[in-house]
Amino acid sequence: MATPSQFLKFVDDNADRFIKRLGEAVAIPSVSGDGKYRPEVFRMSAWLDGQLQSLGVTTKLVDLGKHVMDDQELPLPPAILGRIGDDPKKKTVLIYGHYDVQPAQKSDGWDTEPFTLVVDEKTGKLIGRGSTDDKGPILGWLNVLEAHKTLGLELPVNLRFCFEGMEENGSEGLDDLIKTEVTKGKESWFDGVDCVCISDNYWLNSRTPCLTYGLRGLVYFKLTISGPARDLHSGVFGRMVHEPMTDLITIMGKLVTPDGTILVPGVEDMVPSAQDDEIAIYEKLDYSVKDVEDAVGAPITLSQDKVSVIMGRMRLPSLSLHGIEGAFYGPGAKTVIPASVSGKFSIRIVPPQTPEAIEPLVKKYVEQEFAKLNSKNKLKIENLHDGRPWLADHRHWNYEAAIRATEAVYKRSPDLTREGGSIPVTLTFAESLGVNVLLLPMGRGDDGAHSTNEKIDRSNFIEGSKLLGTYLYEVGAIKA
Amino acid sequence: MATPSQFLKFVDDNADRFIKRLGEAVAIPSVSGDGKYRPEVFRMSAWLDGQLQSLGVTTKLVDLGKHVMDDQELPLPPAILGRIGDDPKKKTVLIYGHYDVQPAQKSDGWDTEPFTLVVDEKTGKLIGRGSTDDKGPILGWLNVLEAHKTLGLELPVNLRFCFEGMEENGSEGLDDLIKTEVTKGKESWFDGVDCVCISDNYWLNSRTPCLTYGLRGLVYFKLTISGPARDLHSGVFGRMVHEPMTDLITIMGKLVTPDGTILVPGVEDMVPSAQDDEIAIYEKLDYSVKDVEDAVGAPITLSQDKVSVIMGRMRLPSLSLHGIEGAFYGPGAKTVIPASVSGKFSIRIVPPQTPEAIEPLVKKYVEQEFAKLNSKNKLKIENLHDGRPWLADHRHWNYEAAIRATEAVYKRSPDLTREGGSIPVTLTFAESLGVNVLLLPMGRGDDGAHSTNEKIDRSNFIEGSKLLGTYLYEVGAIKA
Repeated sequence: MATPSQFLKFVDDNADRFIKRLGEAVAIPSVSGDGKYRPEVFRMSAWLDGQLQSLGVTTKLVDLGKHVMDDQELPLPPAILGRIGDDPKKKTVLIYGHYDVQPAQKSDGWDTEPFTLVVDEKTGKLIGRGSTDDKGPILGWLNVLEAHKTLGLELPVNLRFCFEGMEENGSEGLDDLIKTEVTKGKESWFDGVDCVCISDNYWLNSRTPCLTYGLRGLVYFKLTISGPARDLHSGVFGRMVHEPMTDLITIMGKLVTPDGTILVPGVEDMVPSAQDDEIAIYEKLDYSVKDVEDAVGAPITLSQDKVSVIMGRMRLPSLSLHGIEGAFYGPGAKTVIPASVSGKFSIRIVPPQTPEAIEPLVKKYVEQEFAKLNSKNKLKIENLHDGRPWLADHRHWNYEAAIRATEAVYKRSPDLTREGGSIPVTLTFAESLGVNVLLLPMGRGDDGAHSTNEKIDRSNFIEGSKLLGTYLYEVGAIKA
Repeated sequence: MATPSQFLKFVDDNADRFIKRLGEAVAIPSVSGDGKYRPEVFRMSAWLDGQLQSLGVTTKLVDLGKHVMDDQELPLPPAILGRIGDDPKKKTVLIYGHYDVQPAQKSDGWDTEPFTLVVDEKTGKLIGRGSTDDKGPILGWLNVLEAHKTLGLELPVNLRFCFEGMEENGSEGLDDLIKTEVTKGKESWFDGVDCVCISDNYWLNSRTPCLTYGLRGLVYFKLTISGPARDLHSGVFGRMVHEPMTDLITIMGKLVTPDGTILVPGVEDMVPSAQDDEIAIYEKLDYSVKDVEDAVGAPITLSQDKVSVIMGRMRLPSLSLHGIEGAFYGPGAKTVIPASVSGKFSIRIVPPQTPEAIEPLVKKYVEQEFAKLNSKNKLKIENLHDGRPWLADHRHWNYEAAIRATEAVYKRSPDLTREGGSIPVTLTFAESLGVNVLLLPMGRGDDGAHSTNEKIDRSNFIEGSKLLGTYLYEVGAIKA
């Protein structure tokens, strides 16, 4: 089933109006991580629900209950479930997206008001909070729906939607919703779903579209050393007592080497070496050491070899030391011996590693190293949160469809990538529904999703809308 | 010249009124470290100046100029210079104290309002910010002056005063004032001073009075490692780049061992071993491992041997790791790779160590250790501030006078102690005036000078006032 040219033309002809609608969405500051914006997140859910309904989608707002944030009980924004099409002869595609955004204030360093979409005619950038993460992609789907409704075109697949309003704040309630929903059989909004498409990540660079088939998992540790009952003055007590900071820093200094090697015994050994066909994928990627240097703003890659650097992110575990809670952190000089300090570090994990396998290795090692110190202080190590890694079969028809759609719209093959971070809902969909999940990014690697001056390029928004529609046609063309 | 019994009786008879005056002083929240209280620091200077004048002291408020704090230009509170008595046959004693206090809010954990002096009749505690640090001792001198004025008694010595209002905030301007003042010869307010008495420290414990003849110095370092141009997401960049935190923690882990040994080559070697007569002083001190454990609230001393523990504070250098600026410090889990992190650590130094000798050793060692890491990040190490150690001759007549005064008032010999912290003005007086300086504490080791529920015991305030007066008589009795 070829993508109808009227659809592609409609997207081009209505580009300015689509951008105006993106402006409406950006103007609602649906910040999920700050309690005072919670009403705006609800307003955003109502706006999105209205759009979906007006485009023929049957929807249901699912109340996810309440949660406590900053000592305040707040209602969780609803998940929006949607359905359009029920043709048993068609494939059914589940679309995920989120309508909440990261916090943003002009004083953070934005050049423009973050909740006003600014169209930079010269560069083609559409600048505003949520433009690329994740309102742009959600509105891409609205654009596809509107084109078909207005043109009277039949959709090539049945669509299901799951949009949430808490992604930037831990996706609270979503896992339970999905797991509960799948148990409902024929009553389930996810009944009959053949594949999932998530558009909530980015190209590796600013040039080449990509499809993402893997994500690292994570285990986040809090290592606490406590000694005195209260903070002490280093003049009075320095060299009289075991100082928690000394113990903590000594142990944290034994977790990872400056070249990135994880020193916790057993962690590195779990990961099999890359085979030739996998290495071939990395070699082909349109991503260079220079791209990494540009992205981080300094020539600090662990290696000058492209494949080594890429593998560090995509298929090796990493251990990062994030900081210390309880120690002196301000500017200036304070001569404190902190009473209790908690080192925060996390390990990004890759298949076949699991949190269940990694956690005991880390705990055992840290406890052994602490015992060597002969300190009278107390040690505590906790797993603050974790998530398993995810790896999809990139030879699945879902990926083949996305590859063909990319080639049709962008006239080039997409890169096949694994991401170093995690999008936990990916794994939940994959495991709960037992179907292939595809990450199909709309924006570019330099969009600054969680940063100041977040943008999506006009061409990514418009061509990306065509890509989403074309992908549906390619899925629709798959033989059952 | 024996201390007149009328003086001692006057102090006892007027104790309640003296405590009421201490309440007036505590009620002025002269917090020097918080800009919004600056007018209160000025109000306190006016109050103290008025008291001194009414007791016959000639005073001069010295404008110390302005300084910038928290991006705000503020006037520095004046130093109060005072003089009473000009008899060339008498010794001249210079008294130092400070009328500013540490910040305090009830919400910090105070049981009572910090700026209302609460008299606990049951325990004899006088509770309030500044009660012991340093308004109690200053008012002890006022009590001595008032007794003599009211009784028509001649003071046994000439007195000079130097009171400042910025001690809790770096004593800004005071060093310059002292150094300038001593150059004025006969015009100097410090002309003819024979010795200095500072009452701004504490007994070692809550039982035995002490005299303090030594202080450690300090060199405070800021070790910065910078890499990326901005904070990075550990999912995206973990194991692609050299992480500044990994480098920093690796180096900080090589500065000091958990048993307190400083690993910077050369630092420990500089300090001579203690001789028998010095060890004898430590053995005699009324201070036990249990006292340290009680003070810090946990059994975490580096040794169970009393003399070892005491020497750790009084005559050995110490290295404390205070914290990290620029890393994640909040509660919870944040998966950041901080772009630039600054480790703060300081070395308390003892004679013959000097900042000039220590600083290059530390810088060389840190640079060598960093070079071993083969990191592409950047290193910077700065000395944020420093101060030399101080050691006085405790066989000087100034100390002999204080020992006899203590024996007369408290019926026991004082402990001779060295403190682990620093009181920079001590060294400035010792070097600028070239005379013996005595630290004669009024309060106890458990007064909580910089903590919540700061107190001075009624008996320390009242017997301490007698001690100050008796000390003057003992100095007056010294043969020229």
